[in-house]
Amino acid sequence: MHPIALTMGDPAGIGGELTLRAWLAHPGMNFVALDDPEQLAGVAKSLALNVPMRIVEHAVEAAAVYLHALPVLPVRLAEPAIPGQPNPANAASVVASIERATALCLTGEACAMVTNPINKAALYQAGFHYPGHTEFLAVLTGAVGQQIMMLASPHLKVVPVTVHASLRASIAMLTTQMIVDAARTTATALRRDFGLVRPRLAVAGLNPHAGEQGALGDEETALIQPAIDTLRAEGIDVSGPWPPDTMFTPAARQRYDVAICMYHDQALIPLKTLDMDHGVNVTLGLPIVRTSPDHGTAYDIAGKGVADPSSLIAALTLAAELASSRARQVT
Amino acid sequence: MHPIALTMGDPAGIGGELTLRAWLAHPGMNFVALDDPEQLAGVAKSLALNVPMRIVEHAVEAAAVYLHALPVLPVRLAEPAIPGQPNPANAASVVASIERATALCLTGEACAMVTNPINKAALYQAGFHYPGHTEFLAVLTGAVGQQIMMLASPHLKVVPVTVHASLRASIAMLTTQMIVDAARTTATALRRDFGLVRPRLAVAGLNPHAGEQGALGDEETALIQPAIDTLRAEGIDVSGPWPPDTMFTPAARQRYDVAICMYHDQALIPLKTLDMDHGVNVTLGLPIVRTSPDHGTAYDIAGKGVADPSSLIAALTLAAELASSRARQVT
Repeated sequence: MHPIALTMGDPAGIGGELTLRAWLAHPGMNFVALDDPEQLAGVAKSLALNVPMRIVEHAVEAAAVYLHALPVLPVRLAEPAIPGQPNPANAASVVASIERATALCLTGEACAMVTNPINKAALYQAGFHYPGHTEFLAVLTGAVGQQIMMLASPHLKVVPVTVHASLRASIAMLTTQMIVDAARTTATALRRDFGLVRPRLAVAGLNPHAGEQGALGDEETALIQPAIDTLRAEGIDVSGPWPPDTMFTPAARQRYDVAICMYHDQALIPLKTLDMDHGVNVTLGLPIVRTSPDHGTAYDIAGKGVADPSSLIAALTLAAELASSRARQVT
Repeated sequence: MHPIALTMGDPAGIGGELTLRAWLAHPGMNFVALDDPEQLAGVAKSLALNVPMRIVEHAVEAAAVYLHALPVLPVRLAEPAIPGQPNPANAASVVASIERATALCLTGEACAMVTNPINKAALYQAGFHYPGHTEFLAVLTGAVGQQIMMLASPHLKVVPVTVHASLRASIAMLTTQMIVDAARTTATALRRDFGLVRPRLAVAGLNPHAGEQGALGDEETALIQPAIDTLRAEGIDVSGPWPPDTMFTPAARQRYDVAICMYHDQALIPLKTLDMDHGVNVTLGLPIVRTSPDHGTAYDIAGKGVADPSSLIAALTLAAELASSRARQVT
């Protein structure tokens, strides 16, 4: 199998440390770091992490290397990165690492990509103008408008239909079409990438008690139920709208494979309440497999040697599983 | 100690079964059922629950009875109740049970009251015009406008500042004053009833990432931060506004005693995700102690013998603790 391409993320954040710790924890996992080898060596030295590295020219070389050393496909920084201090001078390298990983996936040289966290503010100063990785990857892979964010943990998978907007704006922008599109993409991805023959989707209500027959809001009848009707007519196994507060209990979670949620915190609160460390962000709807850890650059602890690689390791593990599932279905 | 007064709730729901099962599970718990003895005996017989009962005239008699029999202070129904079929003819009895329990608490004959679930629609038809128990109890105890709903489980305590309104309306009605009032009442109650010398309150943001410095909404800066400033100036230990999705992780929960939440599901999703069975509804701000199980009448399973008394038992246990704490501080 081809390696996973792992981006550097913001070199002033915890990405480098996580990359090193992930290799130490899972030396048998075939991934190649698209990073600055000198920067990584500096992080390893300062944190006393004993990680042998091998510079490779092509991703395919990783397979022969990764059991004994961390394969690094060099993406050089303009300036040495200082922990906790984002530097716009390095923004082009951060972006190049993402572009390179995407290209490797599109050509088939990598089986999947995993992205270390970036800092959008630092990239904006350098001319990057996407809300985040997901939208940038949609552009790079020609899938604009198809991308959907799913958060997955061992306990729960959630898809927020609206994401990065105020709660007020999220309610205002919600449409039946958005719910249908998100659910369709999710159903397809769960079949293709997660190997579920007939995925069960549970659609959340927006309001307390799912509106209580209109007494507590009408979005369930006006927007959500029509989406469910449309999806059912297409043969998708979908239930709801469910009262949001009772759909994430242990018993309720047995009844579906993924929860389609109406807003960011409706999806993220139950996920992180259950499992802060193993949440993985999965971008559905792209022609490539992409996952990422479910946390940020963590400038406050960068360079201190206390970063927890659990979420990155979970992201690498899941990316490998998704790539395998996709490969099995293609062949 | 005086007994806890336990109301009948909707006699067509699971209240009677729960009362019987609670006594069976905890025969050492001193409570008196304000219920129809014939109705209870019928439920016991039909479900083959071996619960001896003793009719008492005064709550004080319960102490000598409860180890060996369920004490029942009679509140007669107009018609026999049929499981799953709410009957407006019995609404007056349902309300009388609540009124009687409240009166026992106000006179000191009961140490606390616990309410079985009611069905508001059935009561509305009979002229009851309160949104629920909480508002009715505020009127009965002369505490209108003081009442605050708290949900408590062994893992988490939450207070929703807005409760039974659509999500859109909840955002629209939210004010700094509402947050201040809810937090003040909560702080007072945690000191008096929960025995916390200096309770730590964590205030949630409204928006994803708590608004991300205004990029995702301005309620944090416009409404919530001013409330926090006011509360701090009064010497209350309050933190926030916290990003809603990360404030309920196991690590984050160690840092506060209660979460002050901006809307129903922000409070209820993490509570029920963690613990569906042991959540207890506590009304703060009343001159009496009142708790209730965190579920409804469950008409769908009424009379079937499968109702789980865990939440009612938790409500009774917590009511006893709160009454003890309050008694210690009064004497």
